Amino acid sequence: MSNIAYLNSSFVKLNNAKIHIEDRGLQFADSVYEVIAIYEKKFIDLDFHIRRLKYSLKEIDINYKVNEKKLAFIFRKLISNNKLNSGIIYLQITRGIQSRDHVYKRNLKPTLIIYTKNKIFNLPNEKFKGCKVITHIDHRWARRDIKTVNLLPNILAANLAHKKNAYEAILIHKGKITEGTSSNIWIIHKNKILTHPSNTNILNGVTRTRLKLIIKKLKLILVEKSFTQKKLFNADEVFLTSSGSFITPIIKIDSKLINNGKIGNITLKLAQLYFKSLNNE
Amino acid sequence: MSNIAYLNSSFVKLNNAKIHIEDRGLQFADSVYEVIAIYEKKFIDLDFHIRRLKYSLKEIDINYKVNEKKLAFIFRKLISNNKLNSGIIYLQITRGIQSRDHVYKRNLKPTLIIYTKNKIFNLPNEKFKGCKVITHIDHRWARRDIKTVNLLPNILAANLAHKKNAYEAILIHKGKITEGTSSNIWIIHKNKILTHPSNTNILNGVTRTRLKLIIKKLKLILVEKSFTQKKLFNADEVFLTSSGSFITPIIKIDSKLINNGKIGNITLKLAQLYFKSLNNE
Repeated sequence: MSNIAYLNSSFVKLNNAKIHIEDRGLQFADSVYEVIAIYEKKFIDLDFHIRRLKYSLKEIDINYKVNEKKLAFIFRKLISNNKLNSGIIYLQITRGIQSRDHVYKRNLKPTLIIYTKNKIFNLPNEKFKGCKVITHIDHRWARRDIKTVNLLPNILAANLAHKKNAYEAILIHKGKITEGTSSNIWIIHKNKILTHPSNTNILNGVTRTRLKLIIKKLKLILVEKSFTQKKLFNADEVFLTSSGSFITPIIKIDSKLINNGKIGNITLKLAQLYFKSLNNE
Repeated sequence: MSNIAYLNSSFVKLNNAKIHIEDRGLQFADSVYEVIAIYEKKFIDLDFHIRRLKYSLKEIDINYKVNEKKLAFIFRKLISNNKLNSGIIYLQITRGIQSRDHVYKRNLKPTLIIYTKNKIFNLPNEKFKGCKVITHIDHRWARRDIKTVNLLPNILAANLAHKKNAYEAILIHKGKITEGTSSNIWIIHKNKILTHPSNTNILNGVTRTRLKLIIKKLKLILVEKSFTQKKLFNADEVFLTSSGSFITPIIKIDSKLINNGKIGNITLKLAQLYFKSLNNE
């Protein structure tokens, strides 16, 4: 059971982990976060997550000095206390507490929240599953490259997907695919792998970054370029990546089957190599 | 001193008013709010706020049944306990607490937060002040008509304004003025009053709504149509409206003086009539 959390400077029972109602994270979504996968008690790509966390904090001017060693110590203690084998670490940093005002004070003490959650990953073994997704207009704000909790547009699209028995919503901005509500989207088209370039329109995913290295090693062709909805529907294979679901094949988009509703060969191979790379560390 | 808050179903000390770290308001900005002006112990336009609150809840599918009488009772108790004469009531409703997941459960119990804050309004008397503002690109999500706490783009623009000693940032979307980070924007151009129409690009302000009635009574010409940045800079008069600052003249935008840096006659007249309408209730 995941029942211990870390709040500001103490380990507390998750049930008792509470923040003030004037925390700017709650009142203004003035906050960033990271979700770090734990697989067989190991962090996956902790260094990438730390780097992105620093980027997010810097971009919105939250004055929190990231101490990687201290965070790793807290993570390990939580993994051990909460007997986590496979799951995620959730880390959130808010700008802090202040009497409500759009203008923030310079000397606020950021709020640090860390806890764990069990999760069973979709691994490329005999149980490997493809999923159905829907498409949806991308209603998000202009800075999707910063991992903030301004997630309501993502929530609304993800819940619409859920209502339609789909796993994820692929977001479309001006006719082009950006990403999913909590994942990056990839297509394979005539043996080329395509995904949206990492600019302000998408989040530069950690799984995306690791997968890019694998694709490079395999000498497959990767094109980081935005592509249309039409190209998505006509893709030979489609998959998504995220820290919470690694590589997940997409076999149906809206009412259109992809690869006849079967997991594609290249997707499977990439998922296997991705999984192998986790075990080799 | 404003020191009592209302949380879920109890009055609590503001200092002790805390919510769980898995509240969806904190993790996903899955939450709506209202800021209701209190002037001489009276609610200003409570009915409009309640109507908009219901709209916001409905649009994001939060299952909270608004009981206006119950809320008014809580508000009055807070005003009395906190000895509030002039200020605001802050009300926030989140979707509730759930183990972190983009997909929300149907049976969540929404979190209700209410507290008060003292505030001195800028009234159209001998101390009536005009303000300086800046212009900024509108980075917000697509549904600005819903009053949610997805406010980080507003926060970033408002703080940039503050750094430049300005009171507000006027947001520009595709070359047209939408609104301020927490206000609606109005210009007067050749005796016509212009403001952005109330669609999904702006919040339908409560002060905006009351002012429209006053303009109608005065038989002034109101055009609800979006206008360009150029038209803003060439306006005869500019002002903003919000529940937290009523009608506030704008006398400088970026480095450009408006009406030679003086409060315009029509703005002053509207502010006086607005203020009078509050006293007549």
